[in-house]
Amino acid sequence: MLGKLTGFDDTIVALATAPGVGAIAVIRLSGKAAFAICNSLFPAKDLLQQPSHTLHFGSIVSAGKVIDEVVVSLYKGPRSYTGEDVIEISCHGSPYIQQQIIDACVNAGARLAKPGEFTQRAFLNGKLDLTQAESVADLIASNSAASHQTAMQQMRGGFSRELKALREQLITFSALIELELDFSQEDVEFADRTRLYNLVTEAMLVLRHLIDSFRMGNVIKNGVNTAIVGKPNAGKSTLLNTLLNENRAIVSDIAGTTRDTIEEILNIQGILFRLIDTAGIRESADSIESIGVQKTMEKIKEAGVVVYLFDVNELTATDIRNQMADFENAQVNYLLVGNKSDVLGEAAASAKFSDFPEILFISAKNHAHIEDLKDQLVHKVLSGDVNTEHTIITNARHHAALQEVLESLQEVKQGMDNGLSGDLLSLDIRRCLHYLGEITGEVTNEDRLDYIFSKFCIGK
Amino acid sequence: MLGKLTGFDDTIVALATAPGVGAIAVIRLSGKAAFAICNSLFPAKDLLQQPSHTLHFGSIVSAGKVIDEVVVSLYKGPRSYTGEDVIEISCHGSPYIQQQIIDACVNAGARLAKPGEFTQRAFLNGKLDLTQAESVADLIASNSAASHQTAMQQMRGGFSRELKALREQLITFSALIELELDFSQEDVEFADRTRLYNLVTEAMLVLRHLIDSFRMGNVIKNGVNTAIVGKPNAGKSTLLNTLLNENRAIVSDIAGTTRDTIEEILNIQGILFRLIDTAGIRESADSIESIGVQKTMEKIKEAGVVVYLFDVNELTATDIRNQMADFENAQVNYLLVGNKSDVLGEAAASAKFSDFPEILFISAKNHAHIEDLKDQLVHKVLSGDVNTEHTIITNARHHAALQEVLESLQEVKQGMDNGLSGDLLSLDIRRCLHYLGEITGEVTNEDRLDYIFSKFCIGK
Repeated sequence: MLGKLTGFDDTIVALATAPGVGAIAVIRLSGKAAFAICNSLFPAKDLLQQPSHTLHFGSIVSAGKVIDEVVVSLYKGPRSYTGEDVIEISCHGSPYIQQQIIDACVNAGARLAKPGEFTQRAFLNGKLDLTQAESVADLIASNSAASHQTAMQQMRGGFSRELKALREQLITFSALIELELDFSQEDVEFADRTRLYNLVTEAMLVLRHLIDSFRMGNVIKNGVNTAIVGKPNAGKSTLLNTLLNENRAIVSDIAGTTRDTIEEILNIQGILFRLIDTAGIRESADSIESIGVQKTMEKIKEAGVVVYLFDVNELTATDIRNQMADFENAQVNYLLVGNKSDVLGEAAASAKFSDFPEILFISAKNHAHIEDLKDQLVHKVLSGDVNTEHTIITNARHHAALQEVLESLQEVKQGMDNGLSGDLLSLDIRRCLHYLGEITGEVTNEDRLDYIFSKFCIGK
Repeated sequence: MLGKLTGFDDTIVALATAPGVGAIAVIRLSGKAAFAICNSLFPAKDLLQQPSHTLHFGSIVSAGKVIDEVVVSLYKGPRSYTGEDVIEISCHGSPYIQQQIIDACVNAGARLAKPGEFTQRAFLNGKLDLTQAESVADLIASNSAASHQTAMQQMRGGFSRELKALREQLITFSALIELELDFSQEDVEFADRTRLYNLVTEAMLVLRHLIDSFRMGNVIKNGVNTAIVGKPNAGKSTLLNTLLNENRAIVSDIAGTTRDTIEEILNIQGILFRLIDTAGIRESADSIESIGVQKTMEKIKEAGVVVYLFDVNELTATDIRNQMADFENAQVNYLLVGNKSDVLGEAAASAKFSDFPEILFISAKNHAHIEDLKDQLVHKVLSGDVNTEHTIITNARHHAALQEVLESLQEVKQGMDNGLSGDLLSLDIRRCLHYLGEITGEVTNEDRLDYIFSKFCIGK
């Protein structure tokens, strides 16, 4: 099992903090020679004689030149991120200095780390399982409360704990059934079939929940493409501004969010709604014609949710009925929003469209019922509460593997229903174990690992 | 003296690493409550009971939610950057997490740090003098070997050591002369006038060197605006490409250097040559006419050094003589470079322009003598070796103050030449001491300090 492999011969180095200029930057070394390499550049004291988890101030000196005054953090393996000896050099945050120190480490015997290689080593040294390692990348990329919470929950092992418990129970059954095969002449049953049947049934229920959570997980992790459509003068640009202005303060709180991004993303209750073609709405004010029907339909198909905005004073119940039919035919996830209800009056608007209780009446101009609109948007994409305390699948690889697990469990169950023999049952259980192990990394291969970690940033 | 003030009541917090996404990010807290604030967010152990300069793994928990798994570095004052209690929280490098942790610290009683406030506290707590503090900003901004070395040398106190020694000697004389005034009836001389005179003469020599070094310091810190000019078809764009292509590899080594910057900066022997209007050269190939004579003259005036490129096959000695006269009249720092010497032949070119031994003959196309051109460029702007081991002034504030110091020393010297009385002499020495103290920050005021540190980045 790869999870038990240890002992890389080379020592890797990379910038661990974001690139660019900052007050400080951190350069990370991991491997057998990490301490020796840093020690050769750090004349202030003998780092080899210092205890783990301590900090040391001094200069980095290479080829007789002082590169910088730094603080060195020592982590002796296995009490480190990678499980190996790790050194972190905290230097002044000039890209020039960062590069000089990395070069000095390379000259002293380290090699540049590949993307995700620190985390890959952590996984291979058994510090994290594969889902935890993958969630590290998600955690770094998290940009909303919900995506952060789900990544955090996965990194702390919530997901893999559930899977591991199931896997262990199945292994026990598998072992017992295989034991039966050794005694096949005697027709014994070591594995309690009723308990196995109950376990499989229960596990299938859990798996279905996990698989279903992927839709929500995807929304949480990647946000939802959202289109605001409607006839000219329905008030789309006013609604856009109302939504964006209220959100700007929240979004701009997050350091590193650029102004471009702010304009296109709404953060509602921790879910990111990515507005499609807001530029189009802005440029030509209300211009469904200018972009053409074709373009609008493309936009609608791209969207996870469509806000259909109309002027309650202008459209009739028949118009709405026709529009709904179009949306239903195209299988669009839509929200009907009647704007300018301040002009007609809310009561009159409700009466006019009494056939459609799902319509939300707002006044974008007066900011009336905008909070209701936000609630409905969240409800539309999640169809339920986001409880990030429960395990939510956010990773397509996990989603695919879980479906395979479910399928093989179904076969186990069918097999038992049909009185399948122990040896065939055992094969199905093994297949199920294989896919479970793939998720947590207990079963894997190097190519797959390289692929998974290549999507990480360098230095992690 | 401000340098002796300590004890701020508030605790400051800021992101210390570059903004954006990285593997890790570091959040820094400094102040009396730094340990208590972090401790309230870190349930894993009691940080107040841990020794200084140690590292602790655990979770940051705020309002019942786990924000991240982090490593906390403890620095007990005065053994810290600011001289106060300092905590560094190393978290996952997601902007969302960074912001959440900073918010949690603020909710627990810290306030957001102003730009440069950590370094300002280091200065006010006597950990650095003002020139050292200023050089921290230079160090972070350093982007070449030379700018890095001078900033490093200043941060390590080379410059201030020289000034402090002078200041102390002057203080002694000043005290002795003022003592004489108390005994003015008795006509005594406690201060040895000859020694004072020698000290002042010596000091003036050192100061002139320092002041002169500013030209070089400015070149090192800010680079040199460089213009390549010449008639159409002199080969300017070919030369530009030859210079840039050879340099690209070197410059792009530095992380964070954008492609735009690469195209306009030549790093020659650690000095940055910023090419003016390279776009102009590229766009219209060789187009001195297209940009007009007026524009060319502006470009030349902007430049710290002008490369005058001409086709040795085309121009005559008279042309060169006229061009030189123009440059001399306009007080331009120029280099004469004869291109296409491969066509005419180097010997023939030398013979044709034998009146002008300063002309460098090259072939931009064949990359011939490009290294010589680089050497000459460096020589032109530095007029001598860059010995960054010697103190070099890079800061305009220091340069201005040093000129005041020199002026007041001149007055002390003149006063002594003219047999000025002790009380007037003492005034001039005091003025000199004032300006010396301003440089190192022994004499200063809050507004000036706020101004100096406001130019720092936040988190430093």
